[in-house]
Amino acid sequence: MFEQIDMSRKPLTEQVSEKISNMIIEKHLTVGEKLPNEFELAEYLNVGRGTVREAVKLLVSRNVVTIHRGKGTFVKKHPGVVDDPLGFAFMDDKYRLASDLLEIRVIVEPQVARLAAERATEEDISAIDSLCDEVEQLILSKTPHLEKDVEFHTRIAQCTKNQVMPNLIPLINYSIGLFGELTQCSLDVETIHTHRALVKAIAAHDPQAAADAMREHLQMNQERMDMLNMAAR
Amino acid sequence: MFEQIDMSRKPLTEQVSEKISNMIIEKHLTVGEKLPNEFELAEYLNVGRGTVREAVKLLVSRNVVTIHRGKGTFVKKHPGVVDDPLGFAFMDDKYRLASDLLEIRVIVEPQVARLAAERATEEDISAIDSLCDEVEQLILSKTPHLEKDVEFHTRIAQCTKNQVMPNLIPLINYSIGLFGELTQCSLDVETIHTHRALVKAIAAHDPQAAADAMREHLQMNQERMDMLNMAAR
Repeated sequence: MFEQIDMSRKPLTEQVSEKISNMIIEKHLTVGEKLPNEFELAEYLNVGRGTVREAVKLLVSRNVVTIHRGKGTFVKKHPGVVDDPLGFAFMDDKYRLASDLLEIRVIVEPQVARLAAERATEEDISAIDSLCDEVEQLILSKTPHLEKDVEFHTRIAQCTKNQVMPNLIPLINYSIGLFGELTQCSLDVETIHTHRALVKAIAAHDPQAAADAMREHLQMNQERMDMLNMAAR
Repeated sequence: MFEQIDMSRKPLTEQVSEKISNMIIEKHLTVGEKLPNEFELAEYLNVGRGTVREAVKLLVSRNVVTIHRGKGTFVKKHPGVVDDPLGFAFMDDKYRLASDLLEIRVIVEPQVARLAAERATEEDISAIDSLCDEVEQLILSKTPHLEKDVEFHTRIAQCTKNQVMPNLIPLINYSIGLFGELTQCSLDVETIHTHRALVKAIAAHDPQAAADAMREHLQMNQERMDMLNMAAR
């Protein structure tokens, strides 16, 4: 941390923000932990306070830290995981994007369900069971359930104990929101049914049944999507 | 674009950067196209030039645009796709991260190879064939080949015609770099052999053979990784 700033290639602000990131990593700072103040950082890194301020702004824009006025700068929950990291907003054709995302979900999520069934603990099972109930209640009361739906799928990803999966799945499940937007959530009854089958298979530690339930869930979505695509063109 | 800036929730810089992003999307500006200058943007968006400058900096940090001094601000190749979007740098245990990424590659890439074999054009095939040659020559001449290796896998993802895949694969293939770092690239001969089998299967439009070749390639990596993991603990 006390090494010289390399002036050679990247802009100074970028270099300083990398040093601060590295500090977070090396000191194992996690969610909610406080960074040294601007003055201390400037001294440590041997740069001006203005540069530190710019570097911290960069880290805010990258979801690494958050600033609470008057309190300080704190590490965020999933540091470095930005909104829309794959630039979906810049993809024009939303029908095509929804189809492409579903194609990836069909590849990934049945295997995620399989691993979840193999590795889920009792605590995991009770958590996905509760989320399943919550989604069901929202659907039945005609309340928007998409956010909970993404949470349900993300929680299943957590059951795999693969630390990358819970970061990857919400990304792919951008398609849940998009699909909801395009179809106006018309798959309610089917969603309740297949979510339930999925939870049951994971709870029974039955990898094949879990993969099958997930595949059925997604194929249903894909058929609906194909119909929409045909209608839209 | 001429609508009022909403002062309610997000910081002004954030709002203005979103407006500029939306302008890029709506006007279908693509790689290398120039944005209006600072003065014009400030006038359009009805904010100060300082705010525009801050907002553009934010877009630079998110890989949406790039600034060429004295020339202007230009749209980047994959706008909005940031380096390390899943925050891998913040995951501590690099052996575990490499294993987790490989687990995901084993799920995703055989299916990508399958779709590539189904959908590759003659142009695609000739491109992956060239990349395969290039990687092979680098390996044989003991030159670092990891960057070309990622390019090879990304080009295969392009053969699927799924627009999300070429953005997703480099992300997952972060593991290629990590794996290289941990193993010091000790899989050279095997890599040459399995890359070649993969290209042959895609060129023959044989989905099953392509999926099998990819799976074999990844399983080899996984076995090596398991050995390293055991040695490291």
